[in-house]
Amino acid sequence: MSTDEKPVDAQHLSVVRTGSVKLFILTATYKRLVQKAELTRLCNTLRNVRDVHWIVVEDGSSKLNSTAFLLAKCGIPYTYLNAETPPQERMRNNEPYWWRPKGIAQRNLGLQWIRRTLVYGRDRGVLYIADDDNTYDIQLFEEIRSTKRVSTWPVAFAGELPWEGCVTSQKNRTSITRMWTAYKPDRPFPIDMAGFAVNTDLILKHNHANFDYNRPRGMQESQFLIDLGLSHWSEMEPKANGCQQILVWHTRTADPLLATWRRLESQGVLVPPMEDTV
Amino acid sequence: MSTDEKPVDAQHLSVVRTGSVKLFILTATYKRLVQKAELTRLCNTLRNVRDVHWIVVEDGSSKLNSTAFLLAKCGIPYTYLNAETPPQERMRNNEPYWWRPKGIAQRNLGLQWIRRTLVYGRDRGVLYIADDDNTYDIQLFEEIRSTKRVSTWPVAFAGELPWEGCVTSQKNRTSITRMWTAYKPDRPFPIDMAGFAVNTDLILKHNHANFDYNRPRGMQESQFLIDLGLSHWSEMEPKANGCQQILVWHTRTADPLLATWRRLESQGVLVPPMEDTV
Repeated sequence: MSTDEKPVDAQHLSVVRTGSVKLFILTATYKRLVQKAELTRLCNTLRNVRDVHWIVVEDGSSKLNSTAFLLAKCGIPYTYLNAETPPQERMRNNEPYWWRPKGIAQRNLGLQWIRRTLVYGRDRGVLYIADDDNTYDIQLFEEIRSTKRVSTWPVAFAGELPWEGCVTSQKNRTSITRMWTAYKPDRPFPIDMAGFAVNTDLILKHNHANFDYNRPRGMQESQFLIDLGLSHWSEMEPKANGCQQILVWHTRTADPLLATWRRLESQGVLVPPMEDTV
Repeated sequence: MSTDEKPVDAQHLSVVRTGSVKLFILTATYKRLVQKAELTRLCNTLRNVRDVHWIVVEDGSSKLNSTAFLLAKCGIPYTYLNAETPPQERMRNNEPYWWRPKGIAQRNLGLQWIRRTLVYGRDRGVLYIADDDNTYDIQLFEEIRSTKRVSTWPVAFAGELPWEGCVTSQKNRTSITRMWTAYKPDRPFPIDMAGFAVNTDLILKHNHANFDYNRPRGMQESQFLIDLGLSHWSEMEPKANGCQQILVWHTRTADPLLATWRRLESQGVLVPPMEDTV
């Protein structure tokens, strides 16, 4: 592990001074054609959020210059780390994209960074695991700032449904009455990674809560929340106006069409030189 | 045609007062599952740009409440219009997504709005046609503000290439020496819609420059620029550090996986009620 980060002490000072809650946005990313596009979009979104710290963890044995450059240019406080997915856990060519758990080693390194950097009871923060391909309404970030333990809200296009997640009743929007889900509904927390935020004190208190390659499919979120000391979905704090709004979409970017380029490349054609790498 | 817009006079005053160049971002959009997600992302991006006016044109016989609500919430100056694609020009189910020209009626209405709203020689503006699915580095918007006639820059993932567009020489980054393209390279302007911006005085001066369903494929951009009085790609002003950087990506969002939902829906299952529509 090596880090590439803005000075942490200065940030601590600003947290202590303003007394505000800092949002820690943890993004696992990996090299691919659309990586820069997706990180650029998320950068544009996070630039609208105050008191945010972006933890970006690259899947690889080293960091990428392109991501480092992008983060520096983005202009928000960030920490850039890298962790390599073990070879036996990497996606195979013939597997559908949802087959294997993704971002496990990277998210664990992000949790480790939080535990090494923040001090229990001193630093006030909320952690949100935000992948670079999803779409976020900036209202979400203000809503999760008040998370006491774990907050939750509906996620669009998750679990092969138009939306999946918490439901409240018309009489009382402050407590969750059911979880609307189709995939493994008996899970303790039938919820997508994009559908919850955690107070960092809970991360610091439960030092071993983590992600793990050796878990039944769909159980990453549930086991993580159990390890954080929760036992049932009804303990979570509903956000998005009592689970009444969509503030995050589980979007995926299509692979770019490059058939013409593959043909030209095979003929030995070279792209004109450019300062940038696409 | 009907409009739903912030008061134009107040905006004119601010243009006249500050003397700054306003960016007019013209976005043709249409109802689909990921529409709100894509407009939310573009909203997040444009919130980082000063002196911008977003012209959003819905494909339909009326405006959508969801888009109207999203634009109002976004908090940037905007105009919301609608124009319906003629039935015979609509995409058929068996056609690839790139088969028919898209956004023709919508972009033409946007051009009409500019011609009715701005005054030649008084209002200083630049028009950029920005689709809601592409990805934009906010640096692009500052670069195009200085467009005298028509500016251009490379576009990633266009024309089935890693990038397509202008090339300058190491000796002189201020003039274009060639266009790197594979698709119909003999076009007068072998360039994607996302790859150029136009000074609004040129739009006002050339009143009939427009888009048209009855044009050979790939000729929308070329004919539009010819109608604006240009005759060759070498007349365009290179941006992005002399066509050396990627500041826009031609990204596409995959259709959400909803197989489980289709099955449940056919069994008569209803989604729990929600304030929001996904």
